[in-house]
Parts: sequence; C-alpha cells; structure tokens
Amino acid sequence: MTHESKPALGVGMVGYAFMGRAHSHAWRNAGAFFDLPGAPVMVALAGRSRDQATAAAERLGWGAAETDWRELIRRDDVDIIDICSPGDTHAEIAVAALEAGKHVLCEKPLANTVAQAVEMAEAAERARANGVRSMVAFNYRRVPALALARDMVAEGRLGTIRHVRAQYLQDWIVDPEFPLVWRLDVNKAGSGALGDIGAHIIDAAQFVAGDQVTGVSALMETFIRKRPLAGASAGLGAAASGNLGQGTVTVDDAALFIGKMSGGALTSFEATRFATGRKNAMRLEINGSAGSLAFDFEAMNELSFYDNTEDSRTAGFRRILVTEPDHPYAGAWWPPGHLLGYDHTFTHEVKDFVEAIASGTDPSPSFEDGLQVQRVLAAVARSASDRGVWTDVEA
Amino acid sequence: MTHESKPALGVGMVGYAFMGRAHSHAWRNAGAFFDLPGAPVMVALAGRSRDQATAAAERLGWGAAETDWRELIRRDDVDIIDICSPGDTHAEIAVAALEAGKHVLCEKPLANTVAQAVEMAEAAERARANGVRSMVAFNYRRVPALALARDMVAEGRLGTIRHVRAQYLQDWIVDPEFPLVWRLDVNKAGSGALGDIGAHIIDAAQFVAGDQVTGVSALMETFIRKRPLAGASAGLGAAASGNLGQGTVTVDDAALFIGKMSGGALTSFEATRFATGRKNAMRLEINGSAGSLAFDFEAMNELSFYDNTEDSRTAGFRRILVTEPDHPYAGAWWPPGHLLGYDHTFTHEVKDFVEAIASGTDPSPSFEDGLQVQRVLAAVARSASDRGVWTDVEA
Amino acid sequence: MTHESKPALGVGMVGYAFMGRAHSHAWRNAGAFFDLPGAPVMVALAGRSRDQATAAAERLGWGAAETDWRELIRRDDVDIIDICSPGDTHAEIAVAALEAGKHVLCEKPLANTVAQAVEMAEAAERARANGVRSMVAFNYRRVPALALARDMVAEGRLGTIRHVRAQYLQDWIVDPEFPLVWRLDVNKAGSGALGDIGAHIIDAAQFVAGDQVTGVSALMETFIRKRPLAGASAGLGAAASGNLGQGTVTVDDAALFIGKMSGGALTSFEATRFATGRKNAMRLEINGSAGSLAFDFEAMNELSFYDNTEDSRTAGFRRILVTEPDHPYAGAWWPPGHLLGYDHTFTHEVKDFVEAIASGTDPSPSFEDGLQVQRVLAAVARSASDRGVWTDVEA
Amino acid sequence: MTHESKPALGVGMVGYAFMGRAHSHAWRNAGAFFDLPGAPVMVALAGRSRDQATAAAERLGWGAAETDWRELIRRDDVDIIDICSPGDTHAEIAVAALEAGKHVLCEKPLANTVAQAVEMAEAAERARANGVRSMVAFNYRRVPALALARDMVAEGRLGTIRHVRAQYLQDWIVDPEFPLVWRLDVNKAGSGALGDIGAHIIDAAQFVAGDQVTGVSALMETFIRKRPLAGASAGLGAAASGNLGQGTVTVDDAALFIGKMSGGALTSFEATRFATGRKNAMRLEINGSAGSLAFDFEAMNELSFYDNTEDSRTAGFRRILVTEPDHPYAGAWWPPGHLLGYDHTFTHEVKDFVEAIASGTDPSPSFEDGLQVQRVLAAVARSASDRGVWTDVEA
Repeated sequence: MTHESKPALGVGMVGYAFMGRAHSHAWRNAGAFFDLPGAPVMVALAGRSRDQATAAAERLGWGAAETDWRELIRRDDVDIIDICSPGDTHAEIAVAALEAGKHVLCEKPLANTVAQAVEMAEAAERARANGVRSMVAFNYRRVPALALARDMVAEGRLGTIRHVRAQYLQDWIVDPEFPLVWRLDVNKAGSGALGDIGAHIIDAAQFVAGDQVTGVSALMETFIRKRPLAGASAGLGAAASGNLGQGTVTVDDAALFIGKMSGGALTSFEATRFATGRKNAMRLEINGSAGSLAFDFEAMNELSFYDNTEDSRTAGFRRILVTEPDHPYAGAWWPPGHLLGYDHTFTHEVKDFVEAIASGTDPSPSFEDGLQVQRVLAAVARSASDRGVWTDVEA
Repeated sequence: MTHESKPALGVGMVGYAFMGRAHSHAWRNAGAFFDLPGAPVMVALAGRSRDQATAAAERLGWGAAETDWRELIRRDDVDIIDICSPGDTHAEIAVAALEAGKHVLCEKPLANTVAQAVEMAEAAERARANGVRSMVAFNYRRVPALALARDMVAEGRLGTIRHVRAQYLQDWIVDPEFPLVWRLDVNKAGSGALGDIGAHIIDAAQFVAGDQVTGVSALMETFIRKRPLAGASAGLGAAASGNLGQGTVTVDDAALFIGKMSGGALTSFEATRFATGRKNAMRLEINGSAGSLAFDFEAMNELSFYDNTEDSRTAGFRRILVTEPDHPYAGAWWPPGHLLGYDHTFTHEVKDFVEAIASGTDPSPSFEDGLQVQRVLAAVARSASDRGVWTDVEA
Repeated sequence: MTHESKPALGVGMVGYAFMGRAHSHAWRNAGAFFDLPGAPVMVALAGRSRDQATAAAERLGWGAAETDWRELIRRDDVDIIDICSPGDTHAEIAVAALEAGKHVLCEKPLANTVAQAVEMAEAAERARANGVRSMVAFNYRRVPALALARDMVAEGRLGTIRHVRAQYLQDWIVDPEFPLVWRLDVNKAGSGALGDIGAHIIDAAQFVAGDQVTGVSALMETFIRKRPLAGASAGLGAAASGNLGQGTVTVDDAALFIGKMSGGALTSFEATRFATGRKNAMRLEINGSAGSLAFDFEAMNELSFYDNTEDSRTAGFRRILVTEPDHPYAGAWWPPGHLLGYDHTFTHEVKDFVEAIASGTDPSPSFEDGLQVQRVLAAVARSASDRGVWTDVEA
Repeated sequence: MTHESKPALGVGMVGYAFMGRAHSHAWRNAGAFFDLPGAPVMVALAGRSRDQATAAAERLGWGAAETDWRELIRRDDVDIIDICSPGDTHAEIAVAALEAGKHVLCEKPLANTVAQAVEMAEAAERARANGVRSMVAFNYRRVPALALARDMVAEGRLGTIRHVRAQYLQDWIVDPEFPLVWRLDVNKAGSGALGDIGAHIIDAAQFVAGDQVTGVSALMETFIRKRPLAGASAGLGAAASGNLGQGTVTVDDAALFIGKMSGGALTSFEATRFATGRKNAMRLEINGSAGSLAFDFEAMNELSFYDNTEDSRTAGFRRILVTEPDHPYAGAWWPPGHLLGYDHTFTHEVKDFVEAIASGTDPSPSFEDGLQVQRVLAAVARSASDRGVWTDVEA
C-alpha cells in the first residue's frame, strides 16, 4: 500500500510546549517507521499567542496556526484533536471535540478533578457509540520495556503478585530559587508531584500488573512554600524573574502512599520532585510468586526479570535489552542494541491511536482508565489530608 | 603493645546458630586485624543441648560449653555476655548479666516488646553507673559504606534531608511449602519481617540520617497463613518435615510504612520476605538539598553519592568503592578494591565494643537506641492494626 | 528567524536501507529541534530499483526517487549528496559529487581501500577550495556522552592518557545459519567486523582521546567460513533462503589489535560479531593520570567519569546522565533524564553539517579523518596477515 | 566427627605481609565453616626480623616465630609449608620443603623464571610419588562466582568458545611519587603487572575456559621509569621516604596481549597498574556459541550469564548472586545475599588443600599449572621484546 492510497487523518493540536513538541515529533515520524492504516496530516496547531503559535507551527511542521482551539474543531480537515495544554483546559476542549465527532488524544492527567474526569469519560462513552475514539496519553505504556512487562505478567510469568513498588523521582525544584512555574499552581496543574508524575506511575503500575489500587494510606508534603514568581517557561524549566517577588506554592512537592490492589498485592508509591540527582527515575518493581520485574526509566531500554522457575544455581535478575525484533514496537526501528529514547514512546502512542481509529476499536488507555487514575489521586489526597487513614478508591 | 600485655576480656556467648556463628567469627578474628586494647578470650558458649553446644564450641573456637546461660554469668573469667539467642530470651539474660556486672552485647531486635526493652534499657542505665557497658548488635552500622554514609551526612554533605527511603527485601519464604520456622512464630520472634529486618532498616536509616522517625502510617500483611511444621533449622533455612502437619503463621510476611522524621524528612519503609529474587536487598536512599546517598547490601562495598554542589555538566551518582584506607574500618583489611563481606560487619562490631569497654565510654547503639527502634516497631504495628491512621512514635 | 527566511538546502540521498532510514529521519527532524541556519529540503533519493526507491521515498519523506545517483548530482535543486550505499560505491559517487560542487556527507567507512580513500580525500581537498564541504558520517561522535567525553579530555580532566581501551561487541552472526548478507562479502563491504564496527571505535577512540593510533599488532579471524546464501535483507538481518546453497564468508568475523597512540598511551581494540549477548556494546574506556572515562553504547545516555583529583574517601566512578541542558546537543531535546536514542546521533550529525555549510567552515570528521581511519584499518589487516608483527600506521 | 578426632596438620608459613595475613586468616577459620578432614595447627611462621616475626605470629595466631624458613622445614610438627614470601624465594623454599616431605602451598606466580618453575614442577612430580602434595595459590579460582563459571563452561552452557577477554586493572602506582616498592623491582618480583596480576588472569581465564593459551602478540610498557626509593611497606602500599633519592623501575607498568587458545578462541589480556579509578578490577568475559559469562572482582559475588538458548524476547545477561547453598563454597557461610569478601577465597583454598592432602589426591592448580602460566608469561615477554611478533607458548 502506498502512502497516497492511505486515508488522510487530519490532526489539530492544542498547545505547543513540552508535550506539544513531543506529540508533533510523533505525528511527523510515525508513518516513516510503522505501516499505518491512515496518513496523519498535521493540519494546524492552536495557541493563544499568534506569533508564538505561528513560529511553533513552522518549526514543528504544522500546516497552520490558530489562536483558538475551537477553530481546530470547526475545521473539516481535522479528524483528530490532540490536547497538549495544561490540565485545567482538558475537559472543555475534549468534550467539545468529542461532541463535534473528532477523535481525541488527551494528555495526562485526564483532568484536574474527578468531576471533570467523569464528564470527559461520559462524553467519551457517548462518542464511542458514534465511532469516535478517545485516548489518554499515558505514554509510558508505550515504552517497549513496559509493554513487554505487561505482556509477561499477562502470560503468568510472575505468578501471584505480592508487591507493586513504584517511584517517580525527579529533582528539578530542589533549589528554593527555582521559580513558581504553572506546574506549581494548583489552579493550572490540579496538583503537584501527585498528578504530574504520580499519575504516570499509578497508570503504569496498574497497567503492568493488570490490576487496580483499591485503597490507600497517604502522606503529602510541600517542602518549600514560597518561590520567586516565574518569567517565561519552557519544558520543565523557567528562569526566575528576580524582580517579580515571591508567590505561594499551592501544590505538593512530594506524595507517598501505601495501599492494596484488588488481587491482594501490597503497593508502595512515591512521587517527588526533591530526589536530588534523580532526573527522571520512573521506577517500577513487581514481585510475584513465579518471578519479578524491575524497570527504571533512566535506563528505559532495559527490563530486569527474575524467573523464579529457574534453578537457583543460575537464577538471577536478567537485563533484557528491549530492542529485539520480537519486542513491542522495537522491530520497527533499528537493529538490536540500538537504543530508543523518550520521544519514541509518543510515536508508538500515535501509531496505536491511528490503528484503533482505522480498525474501529477503542484505544487504550481510555478516558475511563484516566478517570480511574483520577480516583486514585483523589483518594490519596483525601487520605493525606485525613491523617493517613485508610481510604478506599471510589469504584 | 604485644598481645600478651593486653588485658584479657573473657566472653561468654548464648546461642550458636546463625548469629552465634557470626559473632564467634568476629571474636576469633578481631584481634588479628585491629590493634584492640583488650584481648578477647572465647571462654564458653551456652546452649540447651549439651551435645550440640559442645560440638559448636569446638567448631567455633570456644573453650567450653554450658547448657545454662546462667553458668556463663556465674563464671569469673567471663567479662562479656554476648546474647545470640531468639528475641524472647533477651530481656531475662541481659538484665541478669548487667546486674552481675557483665558487659552485654545483645542481638537485635533488643526485645520482643516495648515493655521488655524498657526493662533492659533501665538495667543498662543502672549498670552504666558502675562502668558496665551494653550495646545492641545492629551490625549494619558497621558496614563500611554505611559508616561512611553516616559521616558524610554528619559533615553536611547532604544538606537538608528531604527523603529517607529504606527497603529490606528478601524472598526466603515465597514458597508456601517453606516450613514454619521459629522466625514465623510470634512468641519466639515477636514479629515477622517487621522486627527481623524492618528493625535493621529503621536503625540504619535513623543512624545514617542522624534523625528519628516521629510518626507513621502503616500496613502489614501475612500472605500465607498456613505452613508445614518445621524440623531442625539452620541459618534462615529449614527442611519441612512433611509428616508433622501444618501450623499457623503468627507474624507478618511484609510490613510497609510511610512517616516523618523529626527534621522534616518524609520516610518510606518496606520490609518483606516476599520480594522474589531479592536475597538480602537492604537498601537505603537519602535525598538532601546538597546531595544524595544510596546503598544496597547486595553490593555492600559500594556507596552511591550524588554531590549537588557539582557542576550539572559533570555531576552524577558516583559509585564509591568503600575499601580505601581512609574509609571506616576498611584500612585494617586489604588493599583497595579487595572486597569485604557480611561477616566483617560483626568483626567491626566487636572491635568497637571492646574499644568502648577499654576506654570506659558507652558504645553505640545503646540499649536506649534499641528501645527507640522498638517504639517505632510498636507504632507501626499499632497503625497497621488501626486502618493506617497516623501514629506517633512514643518519645 | 522564521523557517521561510532560511536558505533552502536541497538534499539527495543515495541508498535507503538501514543508513538511509537513519539519515532520512535526521533530515526530517533536525529543523524541529535545532535552529538551523538553513532549511533542509528532502529533494530525492536514489536506488537501483524504481519500485523500491519510490516506496522508500514516500515512506521516508523524500520528494522524488531516482534510479541513478548521477541524476541526483545533475539536479540544480540538490546542494548536498548524502551517501548511504555500501562502501564499494563511495569513492565514485563522492568524487563525482564534489567535482560537481555538491557538499557530501558520506557513510563510514570512507572507502573499502586506502587508495579509494586517498582519492576521496584529494577530491575533498580540491572542493574545499571552492567552498564545498565534505564529512564522513562517524555518527558516534554525536552521541552526547561521547561529545562530552571529548570536551572533558580537551579540558585536561584526564591528564596524561595512559590507556585507551575500545570494544565493539555484537552477536548477530553467532548462528552458523545466519545467511551470507552483503556485509560478509569483501567486495561489497571491504572487510567484516574490522571496517564495519572496528572503524567506529577507531574513530571514536581517536576523537575522544584527541590522539592517533601510530602502530599496531593485530589478529583477525573468521570463525565460520561457509554460510547459506542470502535472500532479501533489511537492517543487519536477512532471511536465509534455504535453497540457494552455501557461499564463502570473505571477511573477518572478529578483529583484535593492541597498539600505541602518538601521545604514549597503550591501546587495545576489539571488534567482533561473535560476542553472544552483546547487541551493540560499543565501549570505550580511557585512563589518564587525572581521571578516567568509560562508555557503553548499550547505555548510551551515560558517561562514567572518575575524577582522580577528588579525595579518595569520596572518589568513585560517577554515572553522568548526559541529558542536561549544558550537555552537547541534549538541551535541544527534552528535560533532564528523558533519554535520547540511536537515531538522535544522526540528527546531531545533520545539524553540525548544515551549520558548517552555512558558516563556511569544514565539518568534522573530514575525509582526511576518514582516510586516517582507513590507514589504521590497513595497518591492522597487514599486521594480522604477517603474524601480528608491529606495523606502523602510514602517516 | 569431633575436632579432637581429626588428625592434626601442622602448618609453617614463610612471610607475614599481605599474603601472610591472608593465609593466616584462612588457616585460622577454615575449620569453623568447613568440616575439614584434618585439623590445621598454626605451628610457626618465619620472617627475617625476629621482632617483626614475633609480633606477627602473636597477632595472626601462630604458635611460634622463626627467623629462618629452614627451621620450619626441620620441625616434625610441621606438615605443610605455606610460602608467602616474594617470588625470588619460592623455588629454593619449595624444593627444600618438598624434598623434606612437606606438603607445599606456594603463592603465585610460581616463580620468577621458567627455569625456576621447571625445577619446582619437577620437585613436585617427585614428591607426588611419595604422597606429598603441592599447590600454587591462584586464589581467584576459589571465588565462588569463578568456580561456578568453570562448572558452567564444563557443563557446556557456553557451547563453542569464541572469545576470552580478561583484564586486571589497578591504579595504585598512577602517582609518580609512589615509591619504588619491591613489586617494582625485577629481581624481587620477576616482572611487574605481568607476573603480579597478569598471572592471575591467565590462570583464571584458562581455568574457567578449560583451555590454554597457545600463542600471543604482546606489548609491555613502563610509563614512569624513575620513582622515589621506598621506606617500609605494607600491603601494596608504602610511604616514600623522601630523602632516599630516586631509583629505576625495572618492571612493566602494563602488559597487553592478544592470542589464541587451543580450542580456537581469540583472547585479549590486559594487566595494568595505571587504570585510574579501577582498584581491583579483575575482569573476565567469555563468549561462546551457546552463551556468555562475565565477571568483575569489584563485584565478586556476582556472575553475569547470558543464555543464548533462551527466547530472544526474554534473554538478557542475568546477574547471579553467587551466595546460594548450591553454589561452590557459598553454602558453608551465610544465607543467600549475605556477601563474601576477598579473604574467603583463601579460606576456600585452604579447605581444598587440606581435603586433597587427606584424600591423597592432587590439589589444583598444581605446580605444573603454575609452570604453564609461567610459560605464557615468558611468551608474552618475548613477544613484547620482539615487536609483538606472534610467539608460541612453549608446550
């Protein structure tokens, strides 16, 4: 099948910062490595500043720039709305897009509140009846090592799961002079480490374990409560604009919780931006009766696996370099041992999303999955504000 | 100073199993590597079975065997009582020995209950007035890497501590057919993973951080509640004696808790015997404003250190091989890069204990330190039995 | 500066297999991450089969397909010829392109013989006088960790270099049933492991050390001399077409050599396709009086550095995660700890090449550099065929 | 069997420095962990200085001190002579001891020259006829991980061996002010890095591979030719006595060679004291058609194993923690995950030597094995002095 013969899939993207750059890269490249059933066309992006949106569109390969996301939805040549703006905007955009019959790919966390997430999941449910697809962008599911981990658990290689241990450790705000960027503002971000990176490990842990957190005891902390107000930001960073004075951090710097999963496993989660020296240590370890798996995103091409069915004489955690042709996604890229990076996870996400649209099936993780993560986040926040008392996750 | 000119220090040891073997090794060798101010003499060990005690004494290098620990205390040539028997026996032996004017080295956990530990700490306090020394054998403090870690924190290399993360992961009872050894019996052991290995990481974490846990939210679990009754045991292991039937596990298989330290750091602890593939993964990570430290006993000669005062361009976790002459204890042994093992930690313990006795100073960790760990254990157990609600550690 | 205002730089690429896919990806994406001084336009690729070239052009994002590389050179809209075809074709294409005033980016090894490489270097020298640029595509120089390593050596962080140790370990032909692909044919590939991967470590080692190999003692081996004839191939792989019979392997499976560098360092190199379990272990370690560096491509985002000026008490190999904004190339991509992959090295190569063209400077590595590597390869082959006797590298 | 009932085996040790301390530790402890068929009695040590020998005997647990090794041989209560003095003394002592009917354990390298080694091997051969045993102390064979590696190769887990890669990297003389200790004097030490640590990796590589080096191309270097004369020394270290002036280093600082083994494998060896930051990195990697093994003494409790018969999807180098009951030697010590150190290798050596004496079998490695290593060393030196030309190892 040649490129021309594939049905065009027009994409409109909202936002063009960190996530926007990552998603653009994915839309630009997915077709060169995967034999997609549709041909993504990067129709337009939307941003509030015309100049910046135009420059971003040029740089990132989009055909046009809009200053209102509603324009993207209005366009007939746009089939997919890709939401890369902060969490407080997700619900309105997603619901509008779904109601307009556009497929929606939405960055995580799905929303800033459970109420918004419910609204979105309901909109997704209604849209699904009309063949309109929706997906929340928990990109870590598309790390080949974690996709392999999921497959191995599903195949029973771990037996009965006893422990699920997840950490997401970063250190980008250890310095008290780091400015008050939007991610430290509860109104924009919903929460701090909890929703930003805690959401990732909740989703990843539940995805790999094939099970859900049912109750938690939690503890949250804001170590540094006043920070310099921020100037312009980019990525996770920003320059403090010294003269703007100080503002109040309204989100958590760190969130810890212990809990149980429905299958009986004990869990332990930690999300923090104060783990000095850990840059993006998104870690997962699962111990089961038949084996164990361990992963650290700082070595994202590797999966550690202990096979408890082996002879104890030669058993050991093996470092699987997840770059073989028979590994998820990896065969499309380079020969074994030629590593993939962070951006490849988004390319895989786009591939799966396009395939789901083409085949008329529901992509995963769904908005319902995003809602469930939101409910875990809510239980964590509730327990943390109530002396750590055991709090059930709303079913 | 020649060996002969050193004052003899007669030692009587109670118990000769796993810990007895380790302590014997230490008494036998400390003088060959450290210039001790006293000459330990391995006078006698005590065990209930005369035959087994006699065989153990011969094998391990003790001059005699007794069948009653009281005999050790009665002997004039015994200056030190070394308690290596299960936790339910500690209080009685230690108090008797201290009252008889014998220095006491007592295995951990100090006792099976806070009440016993209080009694022991009070006896130690009284004995101290008479120049009688006591020490609880948290041997991990004498791992050179952890002693170095403690020194670095004390020197301020970590700045303000934000996170203390400790895990003690083992897997020796994953198999449901593993028998009901004494460590799974609450009457002998006091608790399961919590008191056995959780106690170690509580002490180690507090020691290295130079701070104490003040409150916790906890979760404990017994995954497998019935096991085959055990025959004879050795080390951690035992053979199930298939015909004896089944018994009930009365201790925890795993204990998790999150909490705070008095200096404001968040803590996370996990002790489990169900972490398949982790054999003795006693791990500690501390994140501070100026740096971080990480340790794993499965690579016990290494300490990972991230120096946050370094240029970000060349900063990174460095793997310090703690075998240099200027490292704690290491200079007494071999050239750099020639590793030490588990048993060396006991030799270091004996060295420090003998030096404290000779210099008339109190060795560390004291029975008071052991009592404080006991109080953390009690708070954990209480919180776990009360829906994880925040529980203050008794001061 | 907007995209439109940048001068267009038309690119014509020869070949579209493994390297062609990698180069295409780089041309497609460099402008989205780096603020290039010119706008690459992917004009056309050339391949012998019209159907395959056309399909590849569509898939990889090229505007047209040609069946003769000469057509690319004839086109006025092509400014750059990018040579991704096997080594036996390099000299003819490169010389023709340079003589036609096209800038040339040529895959490594530069040529299959020293004579061809001399011819190419001379053509590059003549073209340079006319402002025409040439570069040999040793992409590993653009791994951020190796670029950082080079900078650190240049800054004197290693002091006097004593040892340069390089290995390139793969295992893709361990199976005797792996077929006789073109890389095992001396007429196509020039040599086996030596020219394919040995060339990479020779260039990388010399680049990072800032020094050149002056003489060698060598040993080469072909472990498996007969293999099934190959069907169609892709990447490094191919399916044996069982019915085609067997053919003779005419290249080396492994090449080892020891030698000296002009600054007095001892070197040790090993290139092999028989290191079972090593997928792309391109490793380099340099020991100097002031420090050491170590690298393994299977963890390509990490650089190990030992600073010998540190206090021995806290010295240790530090794992620098080379993803910081102040690391070479890394700042253009993602936040710290978000890894890069194999393909990014090509994007960096394109960026540097375009910048050199725009600024009228000579990119590095030059064809002269490629020729010097060829001379090392020739000395290795000569020594290996003459009982390992010391063989000077032609100056 | 009780201790008393075991036949006493009197030991006399020559030398009491680094190796003397290590061997004393082994004699002192072997019986406490292994059920030996004989009871070693530490009768006496010999050293030239009466005061130092007496102090060492007291400290290390020997019953007496002699100032002439001949006295040890004369004693009826000495059954075993343990030679821990420098290489230039080995031949005379060993031959005299064997002729006097004493079993001999001799430190490595067996001798400083092939001629001496031949003489020793012949003496061993004659003594063997009289039931007198001899063994050369290549202690690395008794690292449990390397003993396991040997077993795995012997069981065919690696298939046909293609590569044997060995390095012994240290850095203790990187500083030009490090003094001229006896190990840098050819008359005492025979050679430098080559005989000291190169001998270890030659023996270990041949032992694990079960094969012998048949020919080599070599390169040796002395980077720093003048050093301060040394005062008293200990272990590997010494304090320069600044006022003594300078002397000439008469041994190699580094030795590299490539070669072949009789089974067709290619080998690469490097021994150096100039690998800054590597403290005792005695490394071995073997690649075979069915699997690979890797080892680094700086993590001496671990063995890396890649099983090429596994599904490529879950294959990976596994880290075997060699502390299980079914691992060589390990079961006698501690529970799994409780590490062993450098000194344990000597304890294992003593155990095996005592068992061989008791059972009337020849221990391994024999003096013939030591002679064969000496012949490899000689071939390396010869090749290095003859422009690296291929040099066969004398059969």
